[in-house]
Amino acid sequence: MNATSAALFEKFSKLKTNAGNHSPSLTTLKVQMPEIEIKVDACFLSNPYATELFLKYFKKELLDTGEINNVLEFYPSQNNEIASLVGQHLKIDPSRIFIGNGATEVVQAIIHNFVKDKIIVNIPTFSPYYSFALPHTEVVYYELKKEDNFTVNPDEYIAFVTKHKPDSIVLINPNNPDGGYIPHKELIRIVEELSWVPTIIIDESFIHFAFENSSLALPSIASLIDQYPNLHIVKSMSKDFGIAGIRCGYAILPAEKVSYLLDRGFLWNSSGLAEYFFRLYTRKDFILEYEEVRKKYITESLFFVTELNRIPKMRVYPTKANFVLIEILNGQTSDEIATELLLTYGIYARNCSDKKGLYGQFIRVATRYKDENEYIIRSLRTIFR
Amino acid sequence: MNATSAALFEKFSKLKTNAGNHSPSLTTLKVQMPEIEIKVDACFLSNPYATELFLKYFKKELLDTGEINNVLEFYPSQNNEIASLVGQHLKIDPSRIFIGNGATEVVQAIIHNFVKDKIIVNIPTFSPYYSFALPHTEVVYYELKKEDNFTVNPDEYIAFVTKHKPDSIVLINPNNPDGGYIPHKELIRIVEELSWVPTIIIDESFIHFAFENSSLALPSIASLIDQYPNLHIVKSMSKDFGIAGIRCGYAILPAEKVSYLLDRGFLWNSSGLAEYFFRLYTRKDFILEYEEVRKKYITESLFFVTELNRIPKMRVYPTKANFVLIEILNGQTSDEIATELLLTYGIYARNCSDKKGLYGQFIRVATRYKDENEYIIRSLRTIFR
Repeated sequence: MNATSAALFEKFSKLKTNAGNHSPSLTTLKVQMPEIEIKVDACFLSNPYATELFLKYFKKELLDTGEINNVLEFYPSQNNEIASLVGQHLKIDPSRIFIGNGATEVVQAIIHNFVKDKIIVNIPTFSPYYSFALPHTEVVYYELKKEDNFTVNPDEYIAFVTKHKPDSIVLINPNNPDGGYIPHKELIRIVEELSWVPTIIIDESFIHFAFENSSLALPSIASLIDQYPNLHIVKSMSKDFGIAGIRCGYAILPAEKVSYLLDRGFLWNSSGLAEYFFRLYTRKDFILEYEEVRKKYITESLFFVTELNRIPKMRVYPTKANFVLIEILNGQTSDEIATELLLTYGIYARNCSDKKGLYGQFIRVATRYKDENEYIIRSLRTIFR
Repeated sequence: MNATSAALFEKFSKLKTNAGNHSPSLTTLKVQMPEIEIKVDACFLSNPYATELFLKYFKKELLDTGEINNVLEFYPSQNNEIASLVGQHLKIDPSRIFIGNGATEVVQAIIHNFVKDKIIVNIPTFSPYYSFALPHTEVVYYELKKEDNFTVNPDEYIAFVTKHKPDSIVLINPNNPDGGYIPHKELIRIVEELSWVPTIIIDESFIHFAFENSSLALPSIASLIDQYPNLHIVKSMSKDFGIAGIRCGYAILPAEKVSYLLDRGFLWNSSGLAEYFFRLYTRKDFILEYEEVRKKYITESLFFVTELNRIPKMRVYPTKANFVLIEILNGQTSDEIATELLLTYGIYARNCSDKKGLYGQFIRVATRYKDENEYIIRSLRTIFR
């Protein structure tokens, strides 16, 4: 590493430290480190074709009409009204829908209000599930093993939960940061056998990228919410719909928990643009087009992962999400590889050195546009040559 | 009221009930009651000239450049980074700034985390200050009297607080919904004499419309935060900057309370557009232009209130905000007047029949554009003829 690179690396490390258990955003990077040219943001877990689709509607319906002015100027609708639209679309009782300012707010609301003395969190994980815990909550970690490809073994997991008797558990499906997937039938078995756990959180933020058959049908557990009253389903809209900047998410909760939250806040927590997105999300014309870009993106992701798998000296873990966890096996550290990717290739990948429960050197790389994926593959091939 | 009007009235009343202690939003009204033509939204407390100014920058910097796509697609910066900008702008230690998804989220965060056993809330008020209270918090109401023009009498207030020994108090200055203003010197005296109260919340959401001299300088108490460590300042940006749809607000809190909140959530609670607004807010070029529209709007508001004062059979309470509380003295109810304004004149005013602590028939009317103000005046003149 030369002096310039070393200085850049130090600056970048500082930004990373300030971002806590997350990566600095692209905006932060651009403003704080204008000397770096970022060609591919592979840190960012988002379907770019869905972004294009959203922007098409946004341009036609808000920009070209001037309606954007009203969206920015006036108060958006209240939580329960947007929930009513989303519930109708999902064919789920609207009184069970809680609209969030991004899934992060939904996670926060659940962790602060409904998780009591003990929660079991599988690691590696999305850090807010443990970092948002209140002081009186004990967090017990269930370690997913790399030898098992980070997948959940239902029998072992059920035995672990039964032994620890928590009031809350979390399963992210597919899991972040490894992409590990619990098949629908296994998930049902876990939920049935653990029906005595009061708060079962299933985070389906990446479920739009998962599939169990070649028609790529969406394998969500949301339709079973009436059978399993303890289910608390968390859903981000940032990744599948490519609109992280708008902040949209929701939860499907027991109706009395939605009331509990709405009686004490979360009044105007959707922006005007978030409301516009949710209204779009419930429209048939939009969803029909969306299904096409969802499947296109999954297909390209499959190809991307297949190619990554062929690169030597790194291990690509099996994924049903729109990203892959890569273990570095050439003797370099994830700090080194992430820095080389950023400074030499302009590829912003997620350095997983801060991820609890990952033993080894790992980076996470997201699927983006086809040509961006190809560029990532070429760059990694050169690095691991 | 004829049959059509009665049906519309019933439908409108139902929307109002669903909106709780608030008014249905303009979007809700438009979608649910397309048969009503709303000419002036005087329910909405916002400077339209500031909206125009924001839209000018928005168009030039985000739309014309295509940068809007990035704002919608990518994750915004985290809370502490936006706080750092706002702190520098306000010349306040950034570790004391907490950025909120609208002031409502800020109020919620304070009420849920820092208000303990007892809070004193002046009524009439902005309802979240009592409705968001957790079950273990006792809310004690201090009634502002219409005989006193709803102003706070410092001696009486200090005696009341001293008697009740709360851990938290709230002063909205200027107050919503009456516009009553506590002069800077009196507020300082209250804060000094009540320095034993751990959590003193001063809501300055309407402070940009207040003034104490003819240069219309902004009389905020924020600069005194170092002298009075118990101050918790709440600031909405929706009203003064005319951007309610974006959801922007902040608080100035003791640094350890900001850390407490950020350690447990509020990670990505600003949208990309909120971040854009906050960056704009800290720029000299924008603020110079903003000061002009702020003063223009105040001047027009002064004229509006002066003219309203001349209409018989209604009482206009003294205000230093961008709205007036009007008491109806012609024998009609606020339901009747608000409905007549909406259905006959297309003027959406705030029916205050649900406002705790208002004894009598009240509506609240906001200042809007000059010609809209004139239309409101003409309409009220006709009604109260």
